[in-house]
Amino acid sequence: MMKSRQFLLASRPVGTPTAENWDFVEAELPELEQNQIKVKVLYISLDPAMRGWMNEGKSYIPPVGIGEVMRAGGVGEVLDSTDPNFSPGDFVYGGFGVCDFAVIATQGVHKIDPSLAPLERYLGVLGMPGMTAYFGILNTGLPKAGETVVVSGAAGAVGTVVGQIAKLKGCRVVGIAGGEDKCRYLVDELGFDGAIDYKNSDVKKGLKEQCPKGVDVFFDNVGGDILDDVLTRINMKARIVICGAISQYNNTTPVKGPSNYLSLLVNRARMEGIVVFDNIENYGKAAAEMAGWIAQGKLIAKEHVVDGLATFPETLMMLFNGENFGKLVIKVDHAS
Amino acid sequence: MMKSRQFLLASRPVGTPTAENWDFVEAELPELEQNQIKVKVLYISLDPAMRGWMNEGKSYIPPVGIGEVMRAGGVGEVLDSTDPNFSPGDFVYGGFGVCDFAVIATQGVHKIDPSLAPLERYLGVLGMPGMTAYFGILNTGLPKAGETVVVSGAAGAVGTVVGQIAKLKGCRVVGIAGGEDKCRYLVDELGFDGAIDYKNSDVKKGLKEQCPKGVDVFFDNVGGDILDDVLTRINMKARIVICGAISQYNNTTPVKGPSNYLSLLVNRARMEGIVVFDNIENYGKAAAEMAGWIAQGKLIAKEHVVDGLATFPETLMMLFNGENFGKLVIKVDHAS
Repeated sequence: MMKSRQFLLASRPVGTPTAENWDFVEAELPELEQNQIKVKVLYISLDPAMRGWMNEGKSYIPPVGIGEVMRAGGVGEVLDSTDPNFSPGDFVYGGFGVCDFAVIATQGVHKIDPSLAPLERYLGVLGMPGMTAYFGILNTGLPKAGETVVVSGAAGAVGTVVGQIAKLKGCRVVGIAGGEDKCRYLVDELGFDGAIDYKNSDVKKGLKEQCPKGVDVFFDNVGGDILDDVLTRINMKARIVICGAISQYNNTTPVKGPSNYLSLLVNRARMEGIVVFDNIENYGKAAAEMAGWIAQGKLIAKEHVVDGLATFPETLMMLFNGENFGKLVIKVDHAS
Repeated sequence: MMKSRQFLLASRPVGTPTAENWDFVEAELPELEQNQIKVKVLYISLDPAMRGWMNEGKSYIPPVGIGEVMRAGGVGEVLDSTDPNFSPGDFVYGGFGVCDFAVIATQGVHKIDPSLAPLERYLGVLGMPGMTAYFGILNTGLPKAGETVVVSGAAGAVGTVVGQIAKLKGCRVVGIAGGEDKCRYLVDELGFDGAIDYKNSDVKKGLKEQCPKGVDVFFDNVGGDILDDVLTRINMKARIVICGAISQYNNTTPVKGPSNYLSLLVNRARMEGIVVFDNIENYGKAAAEMAGWIAQGKLIAKEHVVDGLATFPETLMMLFNGENFGKLVIKVDHAS
């Protein structure tokens, strides 16, 4: 029998998750049933959405149950298979959870090609965050050449891609991120036209300086005060894409709704929510287009890799403290 | 020289407007310049938007200046004209302000036909509120037959029309209004499928009962808690039309933003602001279609007429206290 180290959800957090919310256990892997694979998990994706999955109650997918392995996307190598479409040695993407080895049904698992891109990239630009950015900015943000696009969480997995795609579409792009390093990176490495350091400067003032023609598209990953600040600067017929609200996920008080939402009325503007899964039929097309941009040097991928499965509870907190720089992943260590 | 009784904005209100914010004066009317008319004002339109015009600061139109006649739409009779397109005896719609006689440039003034509808109706269904309802529900709400449409401020000038148009489009229509009389009227007289009395019952519970299939379109005139309550019941791809937020207009604290706005994300839903003036080129077409519906008995118009120009300050407050029932207008009295 093979063992798996797993993080189970031990209790639902009130506010910020703590070590007590997790059980780090070793469990025996079951035998394979029909159409299952055994996977050696190599990289685990850490995403803001995980915080929502820890809560009870209805959302776009059910919550993780108490005592269940924490849900997570990952990439790994197939060790064993009862599905003729998968063979040992295949590299795969799937929802393996926060663990080092998994046995899982093959539905929703797909093969990836390690010769085309580093494995961890399939959790970033070529994975969910990349798809979220691609469909969110193009189908809901509807950026037109010459318009000004602002993105919050700009140095994160989604934000970096949103900004670069908007640049490819001929927009002026301004990122909001925490810290001088990130802001410099956005401008110097990714080609953003401007960046606003929300940790060390006044966002409203920054918007006024960096967006002299106002804001046509705002892609929001953070919510809270930043959303309210941007609402004061939007143009007529602006589009606000609500992708997330990481500033609010650990609240113990109610979410801060946007006080300035009546700016939508004054400006005949729109605020619209997106969930990446709605585009599942077009993932292939998007991945191909983005892979082309990467190959041409037009789209730069950035991953933030942390070593060791055991670091999961504190690594997850990097997202909420704004400490990650690019797509946050754990590189899984294996005893065997 | 002819005299005009006029309400001037004396000071900007902090919170709820009071008598001190107005000067009720008598002023001499100027001589007519080129392309002007002298109008005997017969009916004055009272609208929630007036509260916004009393504030300083940028909005979709400039604020009313201190010492200026309060802005208002109205209908009246032409007494004198220097514009060949207008003659004494013509009935006209225009922005005459809160006064009994006015001299005004003819730009933006148009003739109305008193034989087709009572004069006050040109301030309601056939005026701005009707246009707001028509374009807002049809172009932004996009109601489809079989969907559930909820409207707040349902017994008001805009709400009554929104609900009736949604019924004409084959929707289940639920109105939110204050008081048993209004709720009964919506269902018994206007054909709404249901009504929720926000003053005497729990709105969340009412929505659950009256919208068993959830909410596809919400046309919001009030904002505040009601917007938050509806956000908990919206369906996938729901459309929320932000027409106003009368519950927030007299706030001395910041506007209450919708805490539940992340329901937009979970449900891939949209919240969009509207301003009626954007549709000015299509007013004629809309008025013709609505006049047809009225003639066929499919659209019922309701005006709430209060007698006497001097009542303006307290009549205006009826809007914010939810005391008007249908389109609120003042019937102007004239000494001469």
